[in-house]
Amino acid sequence: MNGAESLVATMVKGNVNVCFANPGTSEMHFVAALDEVVGMRTVLGLFEGVCTGAADGYFRIARKPACTLLHLGPGLANGLANLHNAKKANSGVINIVGEHATQHIALDAPLTADIEGIAGPVSHFVATPKQIDKVGDTAALAIARASGIPHQIATLILPANMAWSAGGITGRPQIFSDFKPLDEKQIERAATILNTKSDTLLLLGGNALSSDTLLRAGKIAKKTNCKVLTEWSNARLDRGAGRIEVNRIPYVVEKAVETLQEFKHIILVGSREPVAFFAYPNKPGKLASPKCEFITISNFAQNADAALAVLEKMVGAKDKIPHGMSRRFKPPIPTGKITPEGIASVLGALLPEGAIIVDESVSTGRDFFRCTAGAPPHIWLNNRGGSIGYGLPVALGAAIASPNQKVIVLESDGSGMYTPQTMWTIAREKLDVTILIFSNRSYNILFGELKNVGVTAPGPQANSLFSLNHPDLDWVLMSKGMGIDASRVSDMSSLTSVFSFAMQQKSPYLIEIDL
Amino acid sequence: MNGAESLVATMVKGNVNVCFANPGTSEMHFVAALDEVVGMRTVLGLFEGVCTGAADGYFRIARKPACTLLHLGPGLANGLANLHNAKKANSGVINIVGEHATQHIALDAPLTADIEGIAGPVSHFVATPKQIDKVGDTAALAIARASGIPHQIATLILPANMAWSAGGITGRPQIFSDFKPLDEKQIERAATILNTKSDTLLLLGGNALSSDTLLRAGKIAKKTNCKVLTEWSNARLDRGAGRIEVNRIPYVVEKAVETLQEFKHIILVGSREPVAFFAYPNKPGKLASPKCEFITISNFAQNADAALAVLEKMVGAKDKIPHGMSRRFKPPIPTGKITPEGIASVLGALLPEGAIIVDESVSTGRDFFRCTAGAPPHIWLNNRGGSIGYGLPVALGAAIASPNQKVIVLESDGSGMYTPQTMWTIAREKLDVTILIFSNRSYNILFGELKNVGVTAPGPQANSLFSLNHPDLDWVLMSKGMGIDASRVSDMSSLTSVFSFAMQQKSPYLIEIDL
Repeated sequence: MNGAESLVATMVKGNVNVCFANPGTSEMHFVAALDEVVGMRTVLGLFEGVCTGAADGYFRIARKPACTLLHLGPGLANGLANLHNAKKANSGVINIVGEHATQHIALDAPLTADIEGIAGPVSHFVATPKQIDKVGDTAALAIARASGIPHQIATLILPANMAWSAGGITGRPQIFSDFKPLDEKQIERAATILNTKSDTLLLLGGNALSSDTLLRAGKIAKKTNCKVLTEWSNARLDRGAGRIEVNRIPYVVEKAVETLQEFKHIILVGSREPVAFFAYPNKPGKLASPKCEFITISNFAQNADAALAVLEKMVGAKDKIPHGMSRRFKPPIPTGKITPEGIASVLGALLPEGAIIVDESVSTGRDFFRCTAGAPPHIWLNNRGGSIGYGLPVALGAAIASPNQKVIVLESDGSGMYTPQTMWTIAREKLDVTILIFSNRSYNILFGELKNVGVTAPGPQANSLFSLNHPDLDWVLMSKGMGIDASRVSDMSSLTSVFSFAMQQKSPYLIEIDL
Repeated sequence: MNGAESLVATMVKGNVNVCFANPGTSEMHFVAALDEVVGMRTVLGLFEGVCTGAADGYFRIARKPACTLLHLGPGLANGLANLHNAKKANSGVINIVGEHATQHIALDAPLTADIEGIAGPVSHFVATPKQIDKVGDTAALAIARASGIPHQIATLILPANMAWSAGGITGRPQIFSDFKPLDEKQIERAATILNTKSDTLLLLGGNALSSDTLLRAGKIAKKTNCKVLTEWSNARLDRGAGRIEVNRIPYVVEKAVETLQEFKHIILVGSREPVAFFAYPNKPGKLASPKCEFITISNFAQNADAALAVLEKMVGAKDKIPHGMSRRFKPPIPTGKITPEGIASVLGALLPEGAIIVDESVSTGRDFFRCTAGAPPHIWLNNRGGSIGYGLPVALGAAIASPNQKVIVLESDGSGMYTPQTMWTIAREKLDVTILIFSNRSYNILFGELKNVGVTAPGPQANSLFSLNHPDLDWVLMSKGMGIDASRVSDMSSLTSVFSFAMQQKSPYLIEIDL
């Protein structure tokens, strides 16, 4: 068995059986091994950001890591932004990055680069096996890192001679965990506050967002009258009718400050102290009241559900009927011109049960939450890292992880253009993904941000830099060019009928929505 | 003047007047400054790899740096692969990367990342101004680094508060150069070898590839009977009728070794000892004969033309009629099915004078050189760093640098899908760029590379990973979707007529060539 075969065998043995790949010459032995060792599904991405984003989406739905296969330093570099997003979402990902054969590195060939240096900023773990019989064990450690708690981005750099030489050994399964037991004292403190204070927020995030855990929060809210919110951006949130509906802290600093100012105590469950996305002159970076006390009852290395179970018991909420249970509600769909509110009502009325929503709607989608609270149960994925171009790749990975759930991507035209190649892979894999493109022909958010910095009338350069017109992008043509059937809609009734049609399909479809 | 204004003012004063930009919120003050300070042209890229590749192409033609404007760590990350290529091409580039306000970094907001860590592997110079009155001087140093010899990739990280605070001062012009004088002894040694040995190669690269410098090499070859070659990949090579035609060292290891084995002496002029692109089992990494002596008469920090002028004089070649002068030759164009040879003859017959060829043809284009040697004088740009996705962005930058020269991109379908967003910017800027897409619907090179590692019949996974079909990409639709008119051609006579048509236009056009 050569090193590449030992690597593939270790992955398959470790239950890693999807590889989002964009290989090159230095990965040829790995590719050959994929045909030698049974059990790894490969999905080709035409750009590495597609692969890394897909691995993120896969993790969020499958709850276990996929691997990526990337070509040398520049291939990894192309995947970096979506690894940043995956890292901030606490997703586990295993990157397999080819490297020149050891003796070739000193020759400084064209593709030679500092791969470990490129990997470092987005990885928790970087390793380059130096002995052929250690490739398998290094892979097993990478699996353990990506699968452990907290989940990690593990990057394994495979020199070509470590791939092609004989002497590979399948790695022994390993466990790597920083899992921390609950801190009962903090939970007691939280219980005391909840029982005695009225100005308290339960702020949920990370692993506190599954329907069961939300239910506990709803019961605690019912019993103690605390408020419940989530962070602005959630890696994965269970929502919809029959589940606890929780609002998010608003994105806009003023609104967030206004929302949080009433709280003197914030109990953090899988979340962190809320901070602004960006800094602005004369605006706070920390969003809560300066007098607010924070009590962390579960951080990202702890079990949020167990923490809330203890808290629920302590405050005597266990048998309560929870606060905030969503009822099935179909918002009426307006007619006429398309508006963000109109799109939101289409989503609320027509989302199918079990849908996975990948939300990269940036400016158009800020109010989607309200209208979809009463839709059938669904899962909502947000971008935790803020690097745009995450939507299509994450949808790809989610659909690979769960092919029987409808995946709906809420995509901006600006963000979508970062990783449009993803459409081809979605077409190729015949995935049940509906893509909505909100075509406002601008980086709309930036017009607002420019105002935020005091420029009331954008000058010609700013106007040009924030506008996606001249020429208009035609998403229908681009989509068809990559093998996904598509329509453009310009009024609410067309949107409604095309969206209904797409919901009946089991194949990819793109709807460009003229805004 | 705020910091952002001092930065823009320093750039303009330093003759940096093109900015390839993809801004975000943290760059808003810089954007506002672009409307306050006169003299900077901005070009919007919809993905950062477009911006960095364009800066590379701009440098190669304008011979002076442009700047990029990138949004925080992930924006820089998206531009990394083409910065890698620019670095390997010895292009000077100034990156301006926004960073959160200093006090915001510790809050670990979603987009917070280790920007200096991301920049390091592709930058010669990374600086983050910490005082508002130093922004201008740091920018001036970045300009000096990028413009000096050897040219550098200079990355300036601008914290938002350094942009928005008052107290900016336009930077004082600076000079930074590692320029090295010629080593006369090495040139004397080269002259002795040329005068006394018959097994000598003059290997040209880097700054030894302008028509005047090539002419000196041709005269030396005439006088001494040495051979002249260039490296496989050249950042910028002057070619065509009336210029010295120089072949390249072949890409394929066996062919390169065969080509070089006769030489016992290789004189390096702006080039380096030739090495294989990739390592393979049982193939050499160094391509020349192990007995070969190398004499460097000019490295990338020296003046290659001056070195050859001295050598020319020493060997008494100054007044010779040079060897290897190309004559105007129009290859006959075959009819019938499209072949790589047929495409090469179309190029040879129809290239307009002064064309800039950006070559990312990978497998299809290996024989283009021969057939275009007798075309009217033109410039040929290759990818020095090997990270694909360089072609369209470099063409964009070249066309911005020289709008009156026809730019022709020889692009593979696989490579083109890395940075397809570039087409929109080319359309928007109405640039005279003709894009040829060689649609072989595969990563064709990888089938060969798999054979190279001993797999004679690719398995189903390899087949799937190297094929770009199911579905076929439709470049005509994608191109029109981004605003560039396009045609598909499937036989030689259609190719000839559509290419002729495109050569008459002064606007962007794409031709998808079915292979």
